Amino acid sequence: MNYLDKINSPQDIKSLNAQELKQLATEIREGILNRDSKIGGHVGPNLGIVEATIAWHYVFDSPKDKLVFDVSHQSYPHKMLTGRKNGFFNDDEMAKISGYTAPLESEHDFFVVGHTSTSVSLACGLAKARDIKGEHHNVTAVIGDGSLSGGEALEGLSNAAVLGSNILIIINDNEMSIAENHGGIYNNLRLLRETNGQAECNMFKAMGFEYHYLNEGNSIEKLIEIMTKLKNNNRPTVLHIHTLKGKGYKLAEEHKEMWHWSLPFDIASGKINPQFCGGENYNDITAEFLIDKVSKDKNVVLVNAGTPGAVGLTPERRQKLGQNFVDVGIAEEHAVAMSSALAKGGCKPVYLVWSSFIQRTYDQLSQDLAINNNPAVILVFGAGISSGDVTHLGCFDIAMISNIPNIVYLAPGSKEEYLAMLNWGIEQREHPVVIRVPGNVVTAKAEVDTDYSSLNRYQVLQKGEKVAIIAAGSFVPLGYRLVEKLKEYQLNATLINPRYLSGLDEKLLDDLKENHQQVVTMEDGELDGGFGEKIARFYGPSDMKVLNFGAKKEFTDRVSVDTLYQRYHLNVELMVEDILKLA
Amino acid sequence: MNYLDKINSPQDIKSLNAQELKQLATEIREGILNRDSKIGGHVGPNLGIVEATIAWHYVFDSPKDKLVFDVSHQSYPHKMLTGRKNGFFNDDEMAKISGYTAPLESEHDFFVVGHTSTSVSLACGLAKARDIKGEHHNVTAVIGDGSLSGGEALEGLSNAAVLGSNILIIINDNEMSIAENHGGIYNNLRLLRETNGQAECNMFKAMGFEYHYLNEGNSIEKLIEIMTKLKNNNRPTVLHIHTLKGKGYKLAEEHKEMWHWSLPFDIASGKINPQFCGGENYNDITAEFLIDKVSKDKNVVLVNAGTPGAVGLTPERRQKLGQNFVDVGIAEEHAVAMSSALAKGGCKPVYLVWSSFIQRTYDQLSQDLAINNNPAVILVFGAGISSGDVTHLGCFDIAMISNIPNIVYLAPGSKEEYLAMLNWGIEQREHPVVIRVPGNVVTAKAEVDTDYSSLNRYQVLQKGEKVAIIAAGSFVPLGYRLVEKLKEYQLNATLINPRYLSGLDEKLLDDLKENHQQVVTMEDGELDGGFGEKIARFYGPSDMKVLNFGAKKEFTDRVSVDTLYQRYHLNVELMVEDILKLA
Repeated sequence: MNYLDKINSPQDIKSLNAQELKQLATEIREGILNRDSKIGGHVGPNLGIVEATIAWHYVFDSPKDKLVFDVSHQSYPHKMLTGRKNGFFNDDEMAKISGYTAPLESEHDFFVVGHTSTSVSLACGLAKARDIKGEHHNVTAVIGDGSLSGGEALEGLSNAAVLGSNILIIINDNEMSIAENHGGIYNNLRLLRETNGQAECNMFKAMGFEYHYLNEGNSIEKLIEIMTKLKNNNRPTVLHIHTLKGKGYKLAEEHKEMWHWSLPFDIASGKINPQFCGGENYNDITAEFLIDKVSKDKNVVLVNAGTPGAVGLTPERRQKLGQNFVDVGIAEEHAVAMSSALAKGGCKPVYLVWSSFIQRTYDQLSQDLAINNNPAVILVFGAGISSGDVTHLGCFDIAMISNIPNIVYLAPGSKEEYLAMLNWGIEQREHPVVIRVPGNVVTAKAEVDTDYSSLNRYQVLQKGEKVAIIAAGSFVPLGYRLVEKLKEYQLNATLINPRYLSGLDEKLLDDLKENHQQVVTMEDGELDGGFGEKIARFYGPSDMKVLNFGAKKEFTDRVSVDTLYQRYHLNVELMVEDILKLA
Repeated sequence: MNYLDKINSPQDIKSLNAQELKQLATEIREGILNRDSKIGGHVGPNLGIVEATIAWHYVFDSPKDKLVFDVSHQSYPHKMLTGRKNGFFNDDEMAKISGYTAPLESEHDFFVVGHTSTSVSLACGLAKARDIKGEHHNVTAVIGDGSLSGGEALEGLSNAAVLGSNILIIINDNEMSIAENHGGIYNNLRLLRETNGQAECNMFKAMGFEYHYLNEGNSIEKLIEIMTKLKNNNRPTVLHIHTLKGKGYKLAEEHKEMWHWSLPFDIASGKINPQFCGGENYNDITAEFLIDKVSKDKNVVLVNAGTPGAVGLTPERRQKLGQNFVDVGIAEEHAVAMSSALAKGGCKPVYLVWSSFIQRTYDQLSQDLAINNNPAVILVFGAGISSGDVTHLGCFDIAMISNIPNIVYLAPGSKEEYLAMLNWGIEQREHPVVIRVPGNVVTAKAEVDTDYSSLNRYQVLQKGEKVAIIAAGSFVPLGYRLVEKLKEYQLNATLINPRYLSGLDEKLLDDLKENHQQVVTMEDGELDGGFGEKIARFYGPSDMKVLNFGAKKEFTDRVSVDTLYQRYHLNVELMVEDILKLA
């Protein structure tokens, strides 16, 4: 920490010599590994971009010159150089500093970013604003090769190319997405690497960019040399640098996919901290079920968009699946459209995606899939109220998906129900089916149906009176607990598992009017636009009292689930209070 | 009609000789102009692709071989060759045949398509399904140069390039989007045209496609020659054809943007049928207001994604706006991200977009814009219940947009309110502001605020008792009519203009409990996930009865507004009945 100790702003690195900058790089790597090993985080992306970040801050003048990261999961070195090193070396400060860029943390960050493929478009807007206002400074976007395949990035590149003024796009090419890359644009990146950037066939030049290639993307001197040349360049320019993902940590260099992101680990051995390991989980359950399914039916095809590891599809499992697994790279829109067409063509596609990323496909869900009513299955992982980063929340998918006509959105309440729904979704040929994969693995306490083709039939788990609890999906266990608790107050409540988030069981809801005065809904997501509001609307003209529990419409950033549950009254004690007030 | 008369399926054209096929082309052009002049529709795109469609059906064997159109606004010739010529020559049949591909109409159509940039991904899915099932046939996607700039198309191309088997992408390059093209990829298309496809720098080859160029894209013979060569080609192939948009109708050849799509017109003069002309409209009102605004404040920037004419930004107006107008081409995601960054950079961006197309940007609205809370303005045109094609409905935007945190979604009830909201949205620096542009231009009957910064304050237009009507946006006039009608039943109802679709005026709603027993909401859009459900949820625990009026969650296809209003009880008589039942 000889050098980093003295760096409090990017200005402080400008007086260091080459040797000192190299030493600084070593110290930054220590910071990355220190933080990741203690609280988890992105490993490989940060280790690979240390030199480029140092060089950029050496050459350019932040925040006058503006650096926009893609995903910003590689912004740790930038953070250490811009006054936030405590977030990497001081255990007590780590949680205070986000793993992504955050304007509230520093004037050197311009956007909260966490999804891929946005940096070029965002930089384009900053550059255009500069031009309109007659200002003069440099705007740089950093984007990894993996993120390049996303539609927004390609739209951004096409537009940046015709900006007509200063914009520098640094393509950080480490030959990897999270997993391996997929798609034709990677043919061109490879050709460019193999020809040291000299190949005439160059997608960036084709668009109109000035193009430069640097094979030594982890050489600070070379990076400084070329960036110095490109500073104040008055035309759209691509600087394609070849870097080593995971550089400086042998395990990460050797096992790039595994070390893209990690839970807390032991630096020496690379072993994940045991407290984070183990237990039955839906990634394994899903992958194993689907591998078995594929082995029996070659028409079943698994689709994923660049995040196979996050849904349990390890390299070994992908190999087992062979041509029945398609990774389209980071290209969620394509994944949905292709899944729809796979179903139209007679296959049984299952697209596995995280809640936060299905957001990238509203129009494809609506137009390519729902209007066409093709029987593709989509599994939404990571859905629900969480302590996640603001950019990776999983609480908006019910509002986004369940209001699109024709889509059947199912919320299983147990492992058995999940597998039954998954099997039904794959085999049926009538509807686009989306299934909200629960978080915790629980066992069904009631019998589970195998056929869900008669839509919107809710399941009564316990018959009671006065109060009916409709607990959706992962909140079924909470529903059981609430019913138990209410017994202490001489209330024998009805418990219902709605199973369908996208429609109402009007018959059942009507029947409840007979001997219930209150209906309580709970859902593991945003209330606005969600499931409970449909129930409230249904009972609007009646005497039935309705209480909806779920998340408030808000972006939360690394707030503990306990705090959120307390805030949203999603615990048994607070719910009982609210219910008794109305009873 | 000598030839077309005898064509009932694509098989019937295979026996025609070159001269006869040319005559067939002429007859198809007559069909296009006949239909468009009578019921309106796409002109230029269809006229330009007549020869390519004939050639494709001559060479390939539909429906075994599969043709997937992008947008499918250019599918008229295909429809005439596949049993649907009555939709073009018989006045009574025209309305029965959609202007887009429709599997329910014909086995030769594979998808309902109406949005851009989807054909490559859809074709990719069909081709992959074929490969998995071990079938053998040709899959072709047709995509115009204008649609190529969309993210989904670029994602699709990158993936199609590595499919490893038969897929033919026909790039129908007429050097035009709806308006002129924008973006770097058009540099490459131009280079390829100028070098007769020989330039080494070729974005398609860069991705890995086999590439062919045909300058004579309106020559049936040449098209047949090259398609015959490419039939059964076992690798991803691009056929780039240069065609003339509007070919065969002089006015359309000369004024390509104006004749992309037309209202009914007189073929000889090109004059629009007078009954469709005239009247004050929000396109003109908006454009003129914004041009004035820009003239006074150079930081105001208008952004559009390839549909300037549809929001009143004619070529003349675009010229007036100069660098303060940015058309990013068909690239809606980029438009939203860029607008967010323009605001961050100190400009005052206004993104003008249709309701149906803002659907393409859910994640950009959420991540690039809302999380960052940048003060960009988005104007949503064409919103509301309509008789539109199923692919172009405008009734889903409230559910999609209003449930994203931080976004202020405003629904003006009059022209004066619209302009006040627009002005406020541009000048404020606190929130992303989306404004739902109404359909009909009406004058405010009450005073209009100029400042909307104290969020979610509803406006009471008339004070009454017992029943409160909350009429949102374009339904404010309907609200006035309903209140009048209720007077006939001795009900003096309260009328409220909520103005904000994205939040509740809890104070006002609470106060209503004092002397109201029923709250009625009406919104010009889907009920599920919409505005009224928030009101129903608010009153769920109370004695207040709530009635929500709006559209059912369904895809409707060219159903008259009258029919839909009847179905949804959105007329005064039916609403009165429903209200009295509860009163």
